[in-house]
Amino acid sequence: MKLSARNVLKGKVVSVEKGSTTAHVKIEIASGQVVTSAITNDSVDALGLKVGGEAYAVIKSSDVIIAVD
Amino acid sequence: MKLSARNVLKGKVVSVEKGSTTAHVKIEIASGQVVTSAITNDSVDALGLKVGGEAYAVIKSSDVIIAVD
Amino acid sequence: MKLSARNVLKGKVVSVEKGSTTAHVKIEIASGQVVTSAITNDSVDALGLKVGGEAYAVIKSSDVIIAVD
Amino acid sequence: MKLSARNVLKGKVVSVEKGSTTAHVKIEIASGQVVTSAITNDSVDALGLKVGGEAYAVIKSSDVIIAVD
Amino acid sequence: MKLSARNVLKGKVVSVEKGSTTAHVKIEIASGQVVTSAITNDSVDALGLKVGGEAYAVIKSSDVIIAVD
Amino acid sequence: MKLSARNVLKGKVVSVEKGSTTAHVKIEIASGQVVTSAITNDSVDALGLKVGGEAYAVIKSSDVIIAVD
Repeated sequence: MKLSARNVLKGKVVSVEKGSTTAHVKIEIASGQVVTSAITNDSVDALGLKVGGEAYAVIKSSDVIIAVD
Repeated sequence: MKLSARNVLKGKVVSVEKGSTTAHVKIEIASGQVVTSAITNDSVDALGLKVGGEAYAVIKSSDVIIAVD
Repeated sequence: MKLSARNVLKGKVVSVEKGSTTAHVKIEIASGQVVTSAITNDSVDALGLKVGGEAYAVIKSSDVIIAVD
Repeated sequence: MKLSARNVLKGKVVSVEKGSTTAHVKIEIASGQVVTSAITNDSVDALGLKVGGEAYAVIKSSDVIIAVD
Repeated sequence: MKLSARNVLKGKVVSVEKGSTTAHVKIEIASGQVVTSAITNDSVDALGLKVGGEAYAVIKSSDVIIAVD
Repeated sequence: MKLSARNVLKGKVVSVEKGSTTAHVKIEIASGQVVTSAITNDSVDALGLKVGGEAYAVIKSSDVIIAVD
């Protein structure tokens, strides 16, 4: 499957924390650079997400704010 | 300024492409991992974004989709 | 590729309108129900989107507002 | 009320699942095509959403990612 | 029409700037507090947006980042 | 820190309601105009958000839908 989203960042799942309905999943896309995603617990199960597994962080470019010091 | 967004990824601006009103800015947050952002041309000027400069990609965790092969 | 987004709606491309940098693509997901997406011209080319072709509209559940009369 | 969002898809509520603060609501917009929305429990009550009732899924075109096989 | 979005902020249109496909519309929701929206030129025409007219800025609570100094 | 988001609206925190993982925070940006944000409980703690404290509501212009009666 190809996606129109400009950001498809490959990495490794480093943590999966399930809440009552929402889970927070962290993907290490490079040493020291971790992306956090909030998805449903159902999606965690449907995708079979496990610590150590491979995953992509998919982000539309219009959802990326830029900040400078 | 501290932000509630879970993802504040530090990197270096590697390209700035201005369109008629929207610009596409690429930030290298680790070797081989580049984040693309779509912001207004005005914001590029207001932030003084230049290739080689330091910048952060700010992304809410609810805007990150996860994909697996 | 499996996605965490809850909405992956299959349909047929019925129009592709390119602007200076942004394109508006319409996907008919059922008779009389068309979803419009704004993506970059580059993504239109990268995905090879053409009228009559098959495509999916991918939408996070947190991006769907509900309205009632 | 008229909205600037390009996607205002009319359908019928087919399920409402409340979590601790977030509810998942499914709207059937055509036979076999269901859109899932994550809204607050308060919004479910404020809109009086019930299975069988009419509702619209409102989605900005910039929130729609396109995928192809 | 009632909306699930938590933020429906009433105000007055103070500027409409059309680009090639995207327009930037500013709504003054209180003295000195202006909200800027990026919508399509078509939506500006469809809603009949004019400086001095009344309009609402509609924002999902999950799209609001909080910052502190 | 400067942000590319067009909307950085200064105000006062008027309520903080924590759920199991998500908190709803209200910021009064002008008399009678309150913006609600959904962020994680962790972010509430990390930012030290308290009723009466100063905070900014940060919103990308592409996340603002416009409505008219």
